[in-house]
Amino acid sequence: MRRLLSSMASSSRIVFSQTERAPGVINFAIGTPGPDLIPKKAIDAAFTSAISENQDPLMYQYALSEGTSPFRKSLAKFLTEQNFSYEGGAVQEENLSATFGNSLGLVTVSKLFAKPGDIVVVEDPTYFLAGKMFQDQGLRCVRVGVDEHGLKVDDLEGWLSSTTVRPSLLYSIPRHHNPTSRCLSQDRGDKLIALAEKYGFKIVFDDPYSLLTYSQNVAPPQTRITEHVISLGSFSKILTPGLRLGWMIGGPKTIEKIGTDGALNSGGGPAGVLTEAVRRLIDNGSLNLHLEMLRKELGERHKVLEQAFEEEFGPGVASCRPALGGYFTYASFKEASVTPGFTTAGLRQHCVDTNAGVLFMPVANCAVADPIAEGEGGFGLVPGLVRAR
Amino acid sequence: MRRLLSSMASSSRIVFSQTERAPGVINFAIGTPGPDLIPKKAIDAAFTSAISENQDPLMYQYALSEGTSPFRKSLAKFLTEQNFSYEGGAVQEENLSATFGNSLGLVTVSKLFAKPGDIVVVEDPTYFLAGKMFQDQGLRCVRVGVDEHGLKVDDLEGWLSSTTVRPSLLYSIPRHHNPTSRCLSQDRGDKLIALAEKYGFKIVFDDPYSLLTYSQNVAPPQTRITEHVISLGSFSKILTPGLRLGWMIGGPKTIEKIGTDGALNSGGGPAGVLTEAVRRLIDNGSLNLHLEMLRKELGERHKVLEQAFEEEFGPGVASCRPALGGYFTYASFKEASVTPGFTTAGLRQHCVDTNAGVLFMPVANCAVADPIAEGEGGFGLVPGLVRAR
Repeated sequence: MRRLLSSMASSSRIVFSQTERAPGVINFAIGTPGPDLIPKKAIDAAFTSAISENQDPLMYQYALSEGTSPFRKSLAKFLTEQNFSYEGGAVQEENLSATFGNSLGLVTVSKLFAKPGDIVVVEDPTYFLAGKMFQDQGLRCVRVGVDEHGLKVDDLEGWLSSTTVRPSLLYSIPRHHNPTSRCLSQDRGDKLIALAEKYGFKIVFDDPYSLLTYSQNVAPPQTRITEHVISLGSFSKILTPGLRLGWMIGGPKTIEKIGTDGALNSGGGPAGVLTEAVRRLIDNGSLNLHLEMLRKELGERHKVLEQAFEEEFGPGVASCRPALGGYFTYASFKEASVTPGFTTAGLRQHCVDTNAGVLFMPVANCAVADPIAEGEGGFGLVPGLVRAR
Repeated sequence: MRRLLSSMASSSRIVFSQTERAPGVINFAIGTPGPDLIPKKAIDAAFTSAISENQDPLMYQYALSEGTSPFRKSLAKFLTEQNFSYEGGAVQEENLSATFGNSLGLVTVSKLFAKPGDIVVVEDPTYFLAGKMFQDQGLRCVRVGVDEHGLKVDDLEGWLSSTTVRPSLLYSIPRHHNPTSRCLSQDRGDKLIALAEKYGFKIVFDDPYSLLTYSQNVAPPQTRITEHVISLGSFSKILTPGLRLGWMIGGPKTIEKIGTDGALNSGGGPAGVLTEAVRRLIDNGSLNLHLEMLRKELGERHKVLEQAFEEEFGPGVASCRPALGGYFTYASFKEASVTPGFTTAGLRQHCVDTNAGVLFMPVANCAVADPIAEGEGGFGLVPGLVRAR
């Protein structure tokens, strides 16, 4: 089992263990809701309604790449109510394009807003598959660190002012960061946009976690979206991952450019039956109800995980950073050896504790380009799969 | 209207007119079934069954990028029954990976089997969006002509033996070609595979039309699939386009490499509810029944179109090539001016006849790299939207 999980993790095919369920193993390695957090009945009902109420066979015809007008209208209203905005105003239909989820959305953005060989600035650490996705597109990554307040924008500025290299894209997870759980501060967000304007790069926010702040009382203000920003969001983290349906928010020119993508023009956007079902979940309030439950539940599970770390290892050995939202908990180990078979070195290498049957994501895997992390031996953990006591 | 359609056609956003239905215009420009050829009831029933019979919320969880084992097993059996084979034997589960349709499948293949700057050999003429898709990926196209028997493989061999340039990919529509309607002969197919082995390129067959031969009596033998071939197929042309679900057939090594794609690893494959619904349509025989009807109907509509051309223009002016299957009819005009407002020059430019309210695909649009076709003034036509008399 150890070998299996190790090889799964090293080949990045961790998704497998989630969907096919490796028996006896709790998978903390990917950010996904546990089966008990998927509102199957509500989704079933939305599909049934979409199918029975819509007698037009064109629901099954090629779909507009940006999504139908009714879908985008409902989505725009929902996102505006959830404090998203474009240039300070409401998100409008023309600020939106449907995607096949954030990963395929990122492929489209990388293709259209960068050329092969171009530079993309990536956070360190970042989502463990981000580097592979950019590499597949022929892009080169430059790393900039993150701390308690998100991307170190001063470091970015220092680098930009000292070099003639000009990045095409900057990739950031601005809220409830994967894997550090931190949020980009408002000051830094503003400064980042100023840098994008000055140096002519596009900011790509991979932002599926903004809607998952545990308590709205402590939510940092939403990250700004301007013509220099493309914000990718997804129903994967707020509804269920397997629909492969998300959105991008951007300026009208950005959305228009997305519409020129050859593959999207050729095949069209996500299936009409999916957008019709999700539109119903937005319009009938099911998505809002589910989000309320999900935020509360993820917050409670995060606390359970935090306490378990404290109790199991003691404050001198391991600690979890309190998170304000999202799926990720960042745990640090201060000793080289924690328990027999549960060493930091072992965890770094194998992503799995053989005693506990737990799959982790070592922070070393979240570093682009360099497979060995230089910093502390931290781990990204996902509370979505921990059941509350 | 003329300006609207012209601008739609020139921006390649012809899909729009199909889904949103420009009133009064028959759209012959894209290969898609008319609304009356979409089996909405059967598809509705398959979704309803997938939803009600499957109580496991993991149907909505991240999906395996290659598709679930039951889906691939059913698909392998179906394709084998339809005379597809791999290396002369039955298509097996491990020869298959699910795709989000042929266009996004082509993006994945282009990313993994070619580097930016690499050469891809493309047929001339070819699918009007193929060039844009390769260009978006940073690939460079080299054209090789097609004739009555498909790709001119001797021309390809001549070019390969006279240059040190080595293509990474060859893109071909082997059966019921878009837009010429021709099929690659068996001799040429065999020779093409020999060339791929000798010169080390991968053949990508864009093959959604093989299953649409009007009469199985006249069907040319299926094109061979070996480790040097990736064959892309889709439910878009044989069931309905808006599911965004297709497959690729290839050698086990090829399929394994597809599984290393960063974006597919990250987001997983097509929605489980889609693959579950389509699996049911395969298993319960609905897809086979529909295919039988579709082949017959497309064949009849093709004949209607052929006769209409003969009657309207006369044999001295315009002619349709008889097609053996698929969606495409290739019409040639021998005179520079046919009727007032219906000139070959006008058709080349505008894709639309203002008198008839018909949207065509000028063959000039099907040439990669060179926007003005050098050859005869031919047009790709789609019989799917013509109603039988």
